[in-house]
Formats: sequence, C-alpha cells, structure tokens
Amino acid sequence: MPIDLTTDAAARDQLLEPGGDGPLVRRTILPGGVRLLTETDRSVRSATLGLWLPVGSRDETPAHAGSTHALEHLLFKGTARRSALDIATAFDEVGGESNAVTAKEHTVYHGRVRSADLPLALDVLTDMVTSSQLAPEALETEREVILEELAMAQDDPTDSGYEEFLAQVLGPDTPMGRPVGGTLETVSALTDADVRAHFAAHYRPQNLVVTAVGDLDHDELAGRLADRLAAGGWDLPEGVAPSERRPALERSLPAAGATPGPASAVVPHRIVRPLEQTHIYLGGPSICASSEDRHTMNVLMAILGGGMSSRLFQHIREERGLVYTVYSFSAAYRDAGLFGMYAACRPARAEQVVELMGAEIEQMRDHGVTDEEMRRALGQITGALALGLEDTASRMGRLGSLELVQGRYSTVDEALEKMAGVTAQDVRDLAARLAGSFTTRVDVGPEAG
Amino acid sequence: MPIDLTTDAAARDQLLEPGGDGPLVRRTILPGGVRLLTETDRSVRSATLGLWLPVGSRDETPAHAGSTHALEHLLFKGTARRSALDIATAFDEVGGESNAVTAKEHTVYHGRVRSADLPLALDVLTDMVTSSQLAPEALETEREVILEELAMAQDDPTDSGYEEFLAQVLGPDTPMGRPVGGTLETVSALTDADVRAHFAAHYRPQNLVVTAVGDLDHDELAGRLADRLAAGGWDLPEGVAPSERRPALERSLPAAGATPGPASAVVPHRIVRPLEQTHIYLGGPSICASSEDRHTMNVLMAILGGGMSSRLFQHIREERGLVYTVYSFSAAYRDAGLFGMYAACRPARAEQVVELMGAEIEQMRDHGVTDEEMRRALGQITGALALGLEDTASRMGRLGSLELVQGRYSTVDEALEKMAGVTAQDVRDLAARLAGSFTTRVDVGPEAG
Repeated sequence: MPIDLTTDAAARDQLLEPGGDGPLVRRTILPGGVRLLTETDRSVRSATLGLWLPVGSRDETPAHAGSTHALEHLLFKGTARRSALDIATAFDEVGGESNAVTAKEHTVYHGRVRSADLPLALDVLTDMVTSSQLAPEALETEREVILEELAMAQDDPTDSGYEEFLAQVLGPDTPMGRPVGGTLETVSALTDADVRAHFAAHYRPQNLVVTAVGDLDHDELAGRLADRLAAGGWDLPEGVAPSERRPALERSLPAAGATPGPASAVVPHRIVRPLEQTHIYLGGPSICASSEDRHTMNVLMAILGGGMSSRLFQHIREERGLVYTVYSFSAAYRDAGLFGMYAACRPARAEQVVELMGAEIEQMRDHGVTDEEMRRALGQITGALALGLEDTASRMGRLGSLELVQGRYSTVDEALEKMAGVTAQDVRDLAARLAGSFTTRVDVGPEAG
Repeated sequence: MPIDLTTDAAARDQLLEPGGDGPLVRRTILPGGVRLLTETDRSVRSATLGLWLPVGSRDETPAHAGSTHALEHLLFKGTARRSALDIATAFDEVGGESNAVTAKEHTVYHGRVRSADLPLALDVLTDMVTSSQLAPEALETEREVILEELAMAQDDPTDSGYEEFLAQVLGPDTPMGRPVGGTLETVSALTDADVRAHFAAHYRPQNLVVTAVGDLDHDELAGRLADRLAAGGWDLPEGVAPSERRPALERSLPAAGATPGPASAVVPHRIVRPLEQTHIYLGGPSICASSEDRHTMNVLMAILGGGMSSRLFQHIREERGLVYTVYSFSAAYRDAGLFGMYAACRPARAEQVVELMGAEIEQMRDHGVTDEEMRRALGQITGALALGLEDTASRMGRLGSLELVQGRYSTVDEALEKMAGVTAQDVRDLAARLAGSFTTRVDVGPEAG
C-alpha cells in the first residue's frame, strides 16, 4: 500500500522501505519543517543529492516571468562564503557533476559525487540555497547569459516547438502555459528586487525537500543537513510542519482555450523557419499527476509510441520510411496534464504523417489493443524501470517527485502492480478519450507548400 | 604496465585484471579469431553488450559514401530468423535498450538488458551481424529514413557545424574528412550491391570484437557467443588470429590542406542560417590516438574548457556573460587527431568570443598553468572517471576502445598514474604547439553583420 507522506508529528520519522534484501528508504522531518528522503545503496561508491523547492514558473506574475529561472542562475554566482569560482571549483575538483533545473512547478539543485565528497556537496548546495548573495552586478552579467540560453532554445526547433505546444495546450498567457524561462522582454525587464522577493518568499525551511540516493547514512546526512542550514542562518524551530502543496482534486481535462476534438479538426500553429524538416507536435490536454489513470496512460504510451516496436514507429518509420524520429509522450502537473505525438519529416510529407498519427489513436479507440501488446508493454515498463533505477540520479528524482508531486510513497513493486492491473479495455477507454481531446498542432518548419 | 593485446596463440586467454577486490577483466580469442573482452560486475543486475567491427566511413570509396551507415540501418530490418518487428520487439518487451553507432573508424551494435536477458540480447545481435537479409526493398524504405536523418542533422547547427569542422581539419573529400553518413547525393545513389559488398568484405569473424560488462560469466558468454556465431553460419576454424588494425606510427600534425597558424590567421568558413545565435568551432589538427601526449591533452582540455571552473567558462561566460555554452574538445583517430573550442553567442558578439578563445591558448603558451589548476584538473579527471565507470555502458565502450584503438589494455589506475605524471611544463609545451596549429573556423549563423 502506498504510504501517505503526511506531516503530523507521528510521521517525523518514516521507514518507507525496510532494507535487508531490498532498498532502504527513509524520510525524516527535520526542525523547521525541512524534509529529507534518502535511499541507501551500498553497492555504489557515489551519491546523488537534490535540493528541491516546490516553486516554478507557474508561481510567477506575468511581469516577473523568468524570475524563478534567473534566481536559479544567480545561486551559482556566489554566497557570503564562496565566490562563483569557488562554487564551480568545488564540484569540478572532485570530478563531480552539479546542475539545476527550473520547471513549471519546482526548482531543483543537484549534484553527483563520490561518497567521500557527499558532505562537501551538501555544504555547497545548502550554502547556495540559504546564503546566496544575489548581487545586483551578478544579475547584470547573468541576464546576458540567460538571454543567450533563450536564443539557443529559440533556434532549436524541438525546444521552441514543444514550448509553443505547451503554451497552446495549457493556455497561452496563463501561469501554466507561459514559458519557464520567461521571454526576451520579461528577462530584459527583470529587476534585482523581483529576484530577491522571489527568493525571500519561497526559499524557506518549510518548502525545502532534500533527496539523496547512494552510499550514505541517513542519520548522518540528517545531522549534517540541519547543521549546514543553521550555519546558513536559517531559523529551524522544532515541531514545524512542512508546507503542504498537495495535488489538487483530479480534473479530467482542464479548459485550455481551444475546444477539444478529433485530430483532423485541429488548426496548425505554424512557426516558420527555413529548415529541411518540419517538426510536428500534435495533442491536447489530459490527466493530471494524481489521476489513477496515470498507469493506463503509461501502458497506452508504450504501445502507441514508446519504443521501436510501438505502433507509431512501426507504421510511420519502419513500414513507410516517412520519418527518422516519431514518438508519443505525456506530461502531468498538479492540476493539469497533456498528451501528444511528435514527428519530424521533410515538409512535403507532413500532412500524411499527421494523418497517420491521428489515425493511430482512432484505430486504438475503434479496435483496442491486443493481449500481445499488453504483455509487451508490461515487460517493457518493468524492464526499463529496473534498468533506469540502477542509476542513483533517477532514484533521487523519483523520491523528489513522489514527495512533491504525488504526496505518497509507493515502492517500485507497487507501481508495477498497478501497471499490471491495467486491462486492454482500460487502454481502449483512455484512447477513446484522447481521440476526442486534440486541441493543438504546432509545426516548426518552412512555409506550407 | 599496460598489457599488449597481441594475437599470438599464447594469448588466447588473458586475465587483464584479476578480480578479488578490484575488477575482473578477461579476454579470449575464440575460434575464427573472434575476440571477447568482458568485465564481471556482480553489484549490478544488468549487463551491456557491444559487437564491434573495425569498419567505418573512412573505409568507403567516395562513390559508396554512406554505405557503412546504411548497412548499420539495414541490420535492424530482418534476418533469416527474425523480421524487423521481431528485432524491435526482442529488446522492447524486456525493457532493454539497443542501438548502433557508425563512426569514422568503427561500427558498434549494442544493447543493455537485465542480466537474465543477456542470452537473448546476444542471440539477437549475433543474428543481425551474421544473418542479415539485406533485402533490396528494405534498402528502399530505409534510404528514406536515412535521408530524414541527414535532414535532421543538417537542421541542427551543432551537428552541421561540427561535421564541417571535421571535414575542414581532416581534409575535405578525404576518407577521414567525409561525413560519416554520406550526403543526399551519395545516399540517394547507393545500390543494394554496394551495401552487400561492404557486408561481405568486413562482417567476418576476424574483425569482430565483442565486449560486455555487468552481471555475467565470461566462460558462459564465450560458449554462447561461439554457438550463436556458428548458428549464424559463420565458419570458425581454430587457431585463426584476429585481424590486426593497430594504430599507425604517431604523426604529430597530419597535413590537412590549410597551413596551421595562430587562431587570428584563420579564415572562417560560413554556413549561413537565419538563427538567433552564431555557433563557432575553432581549432585544428593535433595528436592521434596512440600518442603518449594524450594524457597531457586530457589535462590541458580540463583546464582550458572542461568544466564550470575552466578558463573558457570563467572568462567568457562567468565574467563577461557573452555565452551560455562554451567548451573545448579533442578527438583522436588511428593516424589523425584534432583539437577545438566551441561557443554559441548572438552574432554581434562572435568576433569578440573568437578573440577571447584564441587568447586563452596563447595565454597558456606564454604563462603556463598554475599548480592549483594542475591539482584541480587531476581531481576532476580522477573523480569523473570513477563516476563515469559506475555505468556498465561506459565500461563496455572503454573495453572496445582499448582493443580497437589502443591495441593495449591498461587499468583505470594505470591511466590515472599517467595523468598524474603530466607536468605543468608538459601542458605549456602542448599549448605552444596548439597555439600554432589552428587551421579552421566554422561559423553557423546569420550573415556576418
């Protein structure tokens, strides 16, 4: 049974998985309401650490769009104790990796190091999160770096196509639909005060979730974490509960503007670029992260476009040679979600490829999926999960996502059981919903011929 | 001491690392001259397998350019025993990963699966390599897929920029300088006979190198491999030596056309594209894969542009905010090699960025590097190697590269010892050579303003 990651006092220490032959997973609420989740794995000599804040671009006002991402950049630019070069050197000189990601609903700072260097990694990342200098001149330099980053994304047809697809499906000019990094205009206009206000409002003990996986001791890490946060000047009173930010009640299909309908009724948004290929995103809104249908969605996505044996790959690439890349995808947020298909092909083939993609969903609605496909999909998901979780970074991400997005802990075996419970009829029913849920097509490529 | 991977009868079985507390690495020459190298790692529940052929685009005639890559694609299209869907399904249904890479000097087919599925992975990959159908109609469909792949690479400014950089440094219209996948023209003209000839000439027991890392038993795998190759119809007489393809004598700087000189003297090749950023590759020829200077090159690259604390990153991104991405790189082949720097920035900044990149090499030539930088670089290389080798796929690749490129086995510790022996003076001397070795600059972006 999934374990509720509740916040009452009795839940201060939770043994989420007992260790022994299987994983050892623990969760502790530290003073100040800081949450720590770890998985100890003594078969590796390294650890991956993540510091998560449940704050993303959806928490921005339109005028401050891009401030979450700008803040993430500024945290690397120096603290009371460390220059930007010190921060860069700390990970580089031990051969570690560190980076950060800003998303719509969260920001995470992470690092991977050999186990002996875990205290160092913790010290640097906590220093950044508690004691960033946020110097005005650092913002001026970093603004230019961010504008280069936006220009790079703009030049990439898959980046800009997917960003536009998200905007159209989730609602242009809404908190969810706006681009994560802001725009040339909003980033150019960002002030020091915007970034500082964002930091003051959100970078607080009750918001912080720390997840770590690898060759580590939970109690030792908990002690060091409390010590480093206190050293960074954070007030950490006993008995404070973490801030709650649980998934909203399930909404089946959020209203995003366009009226959902069949794939053939969708009017393409065109981003004109003189490219050899047209990049196509086709899809619409769908289930949110807490929906019980997410297991069905995983199975459907595996069958539709999840691998070389999937329907999209076989019918559009292998049989017809129309594309090099084709796949399906889904994404889920607290109260919104989406599904889609992607393909890239030479422009003259775009309409044929779009027709074939739409037809695959309708085919699944009308005729369902075979038992053989169900068996293969389950094998694929099971094996891929086992292989994926050999990597400590994937497991660190899984812990963060269970805590921040699901609000409940479930073991990998429990997730697989849910997947095994999905029936062919469930997949067909979901396909029927998706077949009528198309709202958006984005083409990035030359003018339609 | 590195172990010579010689081919005489006495070397039929070599224990390359003894196991115990450290890695267990073995090499066996099977009947027919097939080579098998494995590392057994019982801490994981998976294995990565690679089948290598020492054949790449440099082995093609100009008229058949792209045939190595086309053959790689065709091997997935069916064998005597399996359809294309069977091959796709075999890996998908166990959640495994499989793919192939064609390069200038080798082709590799690889897969990663849970350990229980290793016999299956071996069966599928050996079937592909021995018994491909190479049906003419498969070539017709796959030709279209390859043309889409070329169009995709063409649209990517870093792919097309790097390809042009390689061509210019290694010599346009030479076997090494030609693009790996061929061109629109050569791929369109490829015939069934070209691809079959390539297969017949190169896919032979004496050329095959199999490397595998993970939860496996060397002797069991050796037995299965011999069995599967025989089942595929390969003739495997005892006592045959592997084909030799050892690195040529070291050449310091291959003549590639343009006269080497300082960075400032290089005339840019321009690929005009209406992009927000200009992507710049700047560099020239350098040491080949067997050169003893490769350890010095690794240290130099770490200091120049290998991480967030490197000179290029600090001076061009952190201090001046001119770029989002900047780094240095090197590549080495049997008898050629190259070094370079990459940056992307808005077009008006391109000349300033190029000047700064060139100045960094000259700075290193004129003033050398600090002891602190030497210490950091060694820490970075050591840590990154330890972290990188936690992944069975990296180690599988390392075994293949030692066998095919170096022709000698050395342990990770031996490689690190070599690196530790590099002095600041070595780095400065190499910087002095590089500072006078620039031949090529490729800009992908809008017309120069």
